[in-house]
Amino acid sequence: MSSRAPHQGYVREIEIGQPMLGNNLSDGQRLEMALTQELDTDHVHVPWHLVPSLPSRLRQWGFRAKAVLFKDRRSWRLVDLLPPDHETPLLGAAVDIGTTRIVIRLVNLETGETLGETGLDNPQATIGPDVLARIHHSNKPGGLKELQELVIASVNRDLEMLCREQGLAAHDIFIVSGAGNTAMTHLFLGIEAFEIIREPYIPCVNIPDTIPASRIGLDIRPGGLVFLFPNIGSYFGGDLLAGIIYSDLDKKDEPCLVVDVGTNAEIVVGCRDWLIACAGAAGPALEGGVSKMGMTAGPGVIDRVSIDPVTRQVEVHTIEEQPPVGICGSGMIDLAAALFLSGMIDIRGKFVPETCKDRLTEPDEIPAFVLVPAEESGTGKPICLTQVDLNSLTSSKAAMYTILEVIVKNTSGLEFGDLEKFYVAGTFGSFINPESAISIGMLPDLDRSAFEVLGNSSLGGAALMLTDPSAFDRVMAIRETITYIELNVNQEFMNMFSGAKFYPHTDRARFPSVPEV
Amino acid sequence: MSSRAPHQGYVREIEIGQPMLGNNLSDGQRLEMALTQELDTDHVHVPWHLVPSLPSRLRQWGFRAKAVLFKDRRSWRLVDLLPPDHETPLLGAAVDIGTTRIVIRLVNLETGETLGETGLDNPQATIGPDVLARIHHSNKPGGLKELQELVIASVNRDLEMLCREQGLAAHDIFIVSGAGNTAMTHLFLGIEAFEIIREPYIPCVNIPDTIPASRIGLDIRPGGLVFLFPNIGSYFGGDLLAGIIYSDLDKKDEPCLVVDVGTNAEIVVGCRDWLIACAGAAGPALEGGVSKMGMTAGPGVIDRVSIDPVTRQVEVHTIEEQPPVGICGSGMIDLAAALFLSGMIDIRGKFVPETCKDRLTEPDEIPAFVLVPAEESGTGKPICLTQVDLNSLTSSKAAMYTILEVIVKNTSGLEFGDLEKFYVAGTFGSFINPESAISIGMLPDLDRSAFEVLGNSSLGGAALMLTDPSAFDRVMAIRETITYIELNVNQEFMNMFSGAKFYPHTDRARFPSVPEV
Repeated sequence: MSSRAPHQGYVREIEIGQPMLGNNLSDGQRLEMALTQELDTDHVHVPWHLVPSLPSRLRQWGFRAKAVLFKDRRSWRLVDLLPPDHETPLLGAAVDIGTTRIVIRLVNLETGETLGETGLDNPQATIGPDVLARIHHSNKPGGLKELQELVIASVNRDLEMLCREQGLAAHDIFIVSGAGNTAMTHLFLGIEAFEIIREPYIPCVNIPDTIPASRIGLDIRPGGLVFLFPNIGSYFGGDLLAGIIYSDLDKKDEPCLVVDVGTNAEIVVGCRDWLIACAGAAGPALEGGVSKMGMTAGPGVIDRVSIDPVTRQVEVHTIEEQPPVGICGSGMIDLAAALFLSGMIDIRGKFVPETCKDRLTEPDEIPAFVLVPAEESGTGKPICLTQVDLNSLTSSKAAMYTILEVIVKNTSGLEFGDLEKFYVAGTFGSFINPESAISIGMLPDLDRSAFEVLGNSSLGGAALMLTDPSAFDRVMAIRETITYIELNVNQEFMNMFSGAKFYPHTDRARFPSVPEV
Repeated sequence: MSSRAPHQGYVREIEIGQPMLGNNLSDGQRLEMALTQELDTDHVHVPWHLVPSLPSRLRQWGFRAKAVLFKDRRSWRLVDLLPPDHETPLLGAAVDIGTTRIVIRLVNLETGETLGETGLDNPQATIGPDVLARIHHSNKPGGLKELQELVIASVNRDLEMLCREQGLAAHDIFIVSGAGNTAMTHLFLGIEAFEIIREPYIPCVNIPDTIPASRIGLDIRPGGLVFLFPNIGSYFGGDLLAGIIYSDLDKKDEPCLVVDVGTNAEIVVGCRDWLIACAGAAGPALEGGVSKMGMTAGPGVIDRVSIDPVTRQVEVHTIEEQPPVGICGSGMIDLAAALFLSGMIDIRGKFVPETCKDRLTEPDEIPAFVLVPAEESGTGKPICLTQVDLNSLTSSKAAMYTILEVIVKNTSGLEFGDLEKFYVAGTFGSFINPESAISIGMLPDLDRSAFEVLGNSSLGGAALMLTDPSAFDRVMAIRETITYIELNVNQEFMNMFSGAKFYPHTDRARFPSVPEV
């Protein structure tokens, strides 16, 4: 107890006071006392299942033990008590419960080390591709259970697999920490979700309790716990809160911004003193706007494009350098930037026949830019960007910029230049080239050093919760602090949106670093 | 919410705030808010099993509900949520878990009314008659489980039966409140008990958590809770704490005393400012002393005896006025008093042949007093009190008086006359005639109006816990306040004990109201 590292985690070696005559304290009370002293707290909840055999175990272990703990919004909780010489690694699992993709990370609770990671398609997609379809399904008899069981079964399978790779087993996992949007959180926990999508959009639960993992069918250590990040509302999920603690936004001295480009654009701006968030569908004008850019990456998918501004020679890069089969979101942004900077699209985002020349075709009476001719393509067909695709990208980038502008300028009263850091989160975000995104006016024209890729911040936050006992308090404090704004798609917003639909913007002065074509 | 009765119980009608746009509170949060407002508290724990279907139920019920609650040492807990028009009585069950006898009372949680009561022999007696034998058995493989299952099965059977008598079912029971000695508490909960009887006599648990009743096999409402009274130590059980709150000792202005004559003599003296308790085996000198008096009452058992001091005519009364088959503890006390007051035993508690005359026989070379001759007996054999029985009674009454003296005079610094009330608890205590007990010097010579029979105070306290939300706090406060003393059987104690072995005492002045023979 003498010297204590500043950031001790959830595994502690404890020594329990030996019983003696003239002291009526029960074994349970002496255990609690050892734990409260170790943790410097008032109360540690000892779960019932550890109680009945406490006397024999404490005596067998010489009144020493390894304690696996967790701290949630209410109090410290003892998860399990192990022999002092227990050597098998004690595991936790972080789960990013995405609508499309689920990512699982196995963590050593004692060292904080990542032991393995795996991703899987959310199997609920077989029932419905999006949140709306799944919630509708959950409202049918047995539908909720079916959806929950699908995702839990997949997670169980992958947890077992990840553990096996380490020569361990799923029962070595003591805590599962999950983060997802509000709907995914409800479906994972098997909670009625239909009010989320029905006015006035009320979740059943915003702060789920820490519960025994077995309650939702997770097949880990008996008595092991599962915890899901709280939501703020139906359109502001735990994945975002996870992202905030992962980015340390709530600890920053100067305002920073986190944007997660997933199914929706979700943005948080702020610092230790204040936080403003906006998330979710930005009204009918932008319906499907931001989301349409995010295409799934895979081998042969074009992720980088460049066009020589002088020769207009097109170069593409594909994932795993396979013959090209399609283009993903980051590739689209590169392509649009390259087309604009080489004068092949105009400031309205329309193809310029004079500069596109024979790359421009019109197969179905819609202009289309041939990015890869049929003979170089992995599919045998040309890979094209139609004017419709480009319009959609234009809407998306304009939506993104407008939302950023609304939250940073109109709501926070800042200028983009006041942002010390601009974090781009999410798998899609990881691949965006900021240079290109700025060139088309999707991201503001900040010093490039301000941009930082966060990666899967939802997973990162969920993993942080497995090793940092202060994390839950931070999440709860953020919930109290944060201002969540609904985007108000009024006339002013539409005017801003119209300006942002130009390349890079009607107000050219906002993008001084983007070369004039 | 406007007018509130001062002592509202555990069933409340609540109204949950309707959801509306611009308010992100989840159904769960609005339920919590309704409960915390109703209960004027910070936090109410909503159990997980009520969460998943909350949205549909709240809407079906028009955002009104009947809440069944419980308050334990940590916080308020929601036990169940029912439709606002639920009309079936909501039940609780109080259980006095005696070593010999278990008594169950069915209570209407809403009205506090007792609906039924039943008693059964503790089925663990088939394994061992006393705590020691049962704890030894619990240490054998499967023994603990066997003991627990025996008692739980019996309680389940009787709960079902009690409910059926009311046209209800065991699933109408939401809370079970139990009180027993420390060993019985451990065995009921299925907790390792062997350290209780092994130096330094450490219970596994002193403050059992409130847990789902299903965790220990109690077959009540799914999600229903079971709660057992805390112990203070291995020899100071929850039954005594239950007795204290039932007697209101902790609320008295002037010192009072509660004595429970069960397997041991257990005594608490005090008032709202202080409490002193002593309980358990009083050392080898008194081993089995007090306990041997308590014989089981039943039809034909002699419970009252009188002897005409002049004619020395013996009159006996039997339970249900059946032909006599034996004598119970209260009958023994009556008999000893009558023998003493009619000069048939001397002040040392020895039979006086001159006055006993032909009632005194010596069948096995041990003097024996024929209480009922063979021809009047229900067994065909005479019912006798041997000198050995009488010696044992003498030790018992001396032990009782000495313990009372130690705790009242030596420990509390009071005189017996300072006691405003002298409560006699326990089934055995209910039948003791204070006049007789004073005559033999077992109880102090107080004004007879000071004596009050409490009945089964353990059951009474357990029942109180089902209807009074302040009860748990009182129990916890009593645990903090009470001084528990171990009887120190030293030379001084033995001297006091020796004096008390006389009838009524060597110091005759202590018993001014007992007639000189």
